[in-house]
Amino acid sequence: MPAEYSLAELAEICGAQLRGDARVRVHAVATLEHAGPGSIAFLSNPHYKRFLGSTRASAVILAPGDADACPVPALTVQNPYLAYARVAALLMPVAPARSGQDADARVHPGAKIAGDAWVAPGAVIEEAAVIESGAAVGPNCVVMRAACVGEHTRLVANVTLAERVRIGKRGLIHAGAVIGADGFGIARDGERWVKVPQLGSVIVGDDVEIGANTTIDRGALEDTVIGNGVKLDNQIQIGHNVHIGEHTAIAGCVAIAGSAHIGKRCMIGGAAGIVGHIEIADDVTITAMTLVSRSINEPGVYSGSAPMDRAAQWRKNSVRIRQLDELARRLEHLERKMKD
Amino acid sequence: MPAEYSLAELAEICGAQLRGDARVRVHAVATLEHAGPGSIAFLSNPHYKRFLGSTRASAVILAPGDADACPVPALTVQNPYLAYARVAALLMPVAPARSGQDADARVHPGAKIAGDAWVAPGAVIEEAAVIESGAAVGPNCVVMRAACVGEHTRLVANVTLAERVRIGKRGLIHAGAVIGADGFGIARDGERWVKVPQLGSVIVGDDVEIGANTTIDRGALEDTVIGNGVKLDNQIQIGHNVHIGEHTAIAGCVAIAGSAHIGKRCMIGGAAGIVGHIEIADDVTITAMTLVSRSINEPGVYSGSAPMDRAAQWRKNSVRIRQLDELARRLEHLERKMKD
Amino acid sequence: MPAEYSLAELAEICGAQLRGDARVRVHAVATLEHAGPGSIAFLSNPHYKRFLGSTRASAVILAPGDADACPVPALTVQNPYLAYARVAALLMPVAPARSGQDADARVHPGAKIAGDAWVAPGAVIEEAAVIESGAAVGPNCVVMRAACVGEHTRLVANVTLAERVRIGKRGLIHAGAVIGADGFGIARDGERWVKVPQLGSVIVGDDVEIGANTTIDRGALEDTVIGNGVKLDNQIQIGHNVHIGEHTAIAGCVAIAGSAHIGKRCMIGGAAGIVGHIEIADDVTITAMTLVSRSINEPGVYSGSAPMDRAAQWRKNSVRIRQLDELARRLEHLERKMKD
Repeated sequence: MPAEYSLAELAEICGAQLRGDARVRVHAVATLEHAGPGSIAFLSNPHYKRFLGSTRASAVILAPGDADACPVPALTVQNPYLAYARVAALLMPVAPARSGQDADARVHPGAKIAGDAWVAPGAVIEEAAVIESGAAVGPNCVVMRAACVGEHTRLVANVTLAERVRIGKRGLIHAGAVIGADGFGIARDGERWVKVPQLGSVIVGDDVEIGANTTIDRGALEDTVIGNGVKLDNQIQIGHNVHIGEHTAIAGCVAIAGSAHIGKRCMIGGAAGIVGHIEIADDVTITAMTLVSRSINEPGVYSGSAPMDRAAQWRKNSVRIRQLDELARRLEHLERKMKD
Repeated sequence: MPAEYSLAELAEICGAQLRGDARVRVHAVATLEHAGPGSIAFLSNPHYKRFLGSTRASAVILAPGDADACPVPALTVQNPYLAYARVAALLMPVAPARSGQDADARVHPGAKIAGDAWVAPGAVIEEAAVIESGAAVGPNCVVMRAACVGEHTRLVANVTLAERVRIGKRGLIHAGAVIGADGFGIARDGERWVKVPQLGSVIVGDDVEIGANTTIDRGALEDTVIGNGVKLDNQIQIGHNVHIGEHTAIAGCVAIAGSAHIGKRCMIGGAAGIVGHIEIADDVTITAMTLVSRSINEPGVYSGSAPMDRAAQWRKNSVRIRQLDELARRLEHLERKMKD
Repeated sequence: MPAEYSLAELAEICGAQLRGDARVRVHAVATLEHAGPGSIAFLSNPHYKRFLGSTRASAVILAPGDADACPVPALTVQNPYLAYARVAALLMPVAPARSGQDADARVHPGAKIAGDAWVAPGAVIEEAAVIESGAAVGPNCVVMRAACVGEHTRLVANVTLAERVRIGKRGLIHAGAVIGADGFGIARDGERWVKVPQLGSVIVGDDVEIGANTTIDRGALEDTVIGNGVKLDNQIQIGHNVHIGEHTAIAGCVAIAGSAHIGKRCMIGGAAGIVGHIEIADDVTITAMTLVSRSINEPGVYSGSAPMDRAAQWRKNSVRIRQLDELARRLEHLERKMKD
């Protein structure tokens, strides 16, 4: 059920400067390229500036420096993407959560479900689990014994929360995520492996989003901890006893090994890997597909992915990488020779 | 229920040349190495040619150049693997889909299920969802509000289709796949992140196969689009607003960031990564574990994965990679010196 | 329900040497750093030795060489982690599995469920499936037609076993795992792909642990085989016809392409990739994020991941990697020139 706002109202809500007719009303958001009358677009990534001049949006949210090029009314702000996020949430409000327990939900009598929480068909809630006020457990989710879903947190569908896992408030856990499976703890006994019991749990803070099919393992002895405001994309693997600091954002397919401690406000690029038992400082950025193989003590941007090339050229360079130490020695030899 | 065919029949169906007794009948497919009487094998990968001479298959599908080495009747074709695929489908037909709704399916009265579609036990079909003719929704799948499963498409088990996602005809979606979770859209607000509503959907074409635990995110404003005939292996992550051209095949564990546009007939190797907002031309091949960090405008094969070595040797070379720019400068210095 | 043991009892059970008061009793395990009275800690990773001197544990399991530094009674053994695993399993025993079929389990009348097995609410067991003695099928798991769950094996939740898959005894399959989806077999036909039927199955040995959201594909013609005692972490992808030897351990997010054969007692680091149709010998270790692009015939440790650096520095080195073959040629040219 979209709402409708005037530009004057939106400017005030976003703290934006308004250029153009304050009475223009919008009821939808759209891209610059495909917007039509009644919708508001935004310009944030310069890649899309080429669509600004010909946009048919009724208004555009953009940075002050781009306003002169805008053919329609504009809301100018320092961070157009953030202002857009707020406008989009206003114009396209999420449907209010239902409350109650579906007749096809399987709720253990020893679970504690808030009266205004929702448990969907096929969801299984085990003994001593707690579903707090306004929370929603989607279809075919499993909330195991003594796990807790905080206020206004939503498990979308087919999510698994293992025993004693605790999710904070206002969380959003996408389909297929598994929180609290056993960490990968095995001890060698001759040629065999003996399982090390995984006795800790997972504590997820408030305002955390967890992507589809992401997995977060329970701690071995103490807990795996995900700080407030952390945002996790899809298919991330987080090992046992990892700590992730507040407001860190992690892109898809990142693999984090056990007992790594990651700071606050970090940004980890897609498919990066982080080895176990290391520390990453606050405000570190890791680029895509980098293997973080040692602790990082200072903020900054870190990289380490092989460059791409035509395969024929890559094969030649690749052979040379395997000779690199020898090449360097030969260079040193030459340098010494030249000196003499 | 396997069928039985004569070699004459199979030769005609595959457009193959027949060498040997046309009346020989086969009722099963098998590998060269382990085939027995009554089964037909194939030779495509030269790796397995060593098993040809001693095969006990009743017949073999192979390329004309290999026919002389074949001790049993042969069907010769240019593409033995393709001919094998057809013969296997004939001899080992898929069991016909059931129709109806299991008593333990949870179908919203506002969903629209074709009379000859199948909804398995534990499947949840929400309001306004559409299950077209001949489609099958497997056990414990979730089809959310207004999602659509096209004719003769099968969701195997534990699959999640989010709101408004559309899957075309003759699709096959393996267990644990999640289509239509929110894209990873977040806007920075000081040290916090604000969620950017993900308002688009996912449109999947006809004849698409999607592997187990693969995730495809819904678009931010417009749709994520998977073209006709695309084949996706397991555990692939496809970000919001990605477009994948027709007949592109992607191997397992590939990570594709938001708004990447991939051409037609591409082949992406396992665990490759593709950064966001780039374009890949038609007919591009990417080898395994390559990070595609910029657009590719021409067809061809592209690579970029570090070579493997003994760890002791790799450590030495790895140190040198981090000195490489300095080494190159020293080489240039030497070159200038030599010139003088 | 934790148990309580004296140090004398634990020393005997673990084959440890006891230093200190044999009558001390412990009822819990804990980390050196956070242990309190009544709990027993361990020291294995030297990283945590700094917490030994100040531990408040009632006893510590450690190597003989660390015993002098231990301020409390100690159990000394050659492999403290293994001894700890045994003590933890004693003190924190797993709750005994339930037996029976929940009223909300959907069990096909043609399935065969042992009287002392457990089928949880929402689990779907299809025709001809077999659940052996003491096995447990958790909430919302799907066991498809003719699949078999061996004695005392547990499927945690939301697990999918496809048709005819066989899991051995004492296995543990974590949530979201998919065993037996179709392998990625497609044959090119002009610009289209034709599906190659995947007719094999997956055979998993005894004492195998499979992590959350891990996927193991069924074989094309013969079976994918996972040996006894194999330990698989989360989000691993195993292609069709892969063989994994006994007691091999594989960390999270590893991608293994079709028909790779991996030896016994191997250790594969996180997010490594293994290409198809190769062989890896017994007792091979692969470090994290290495692409194994060819067969490995000898035991040992193998690596191949690009080193991490400050991004500014990495960009410079990365450019040089793409010039490496040319740099090497220039070096050779210089060498020849010097010789003359």
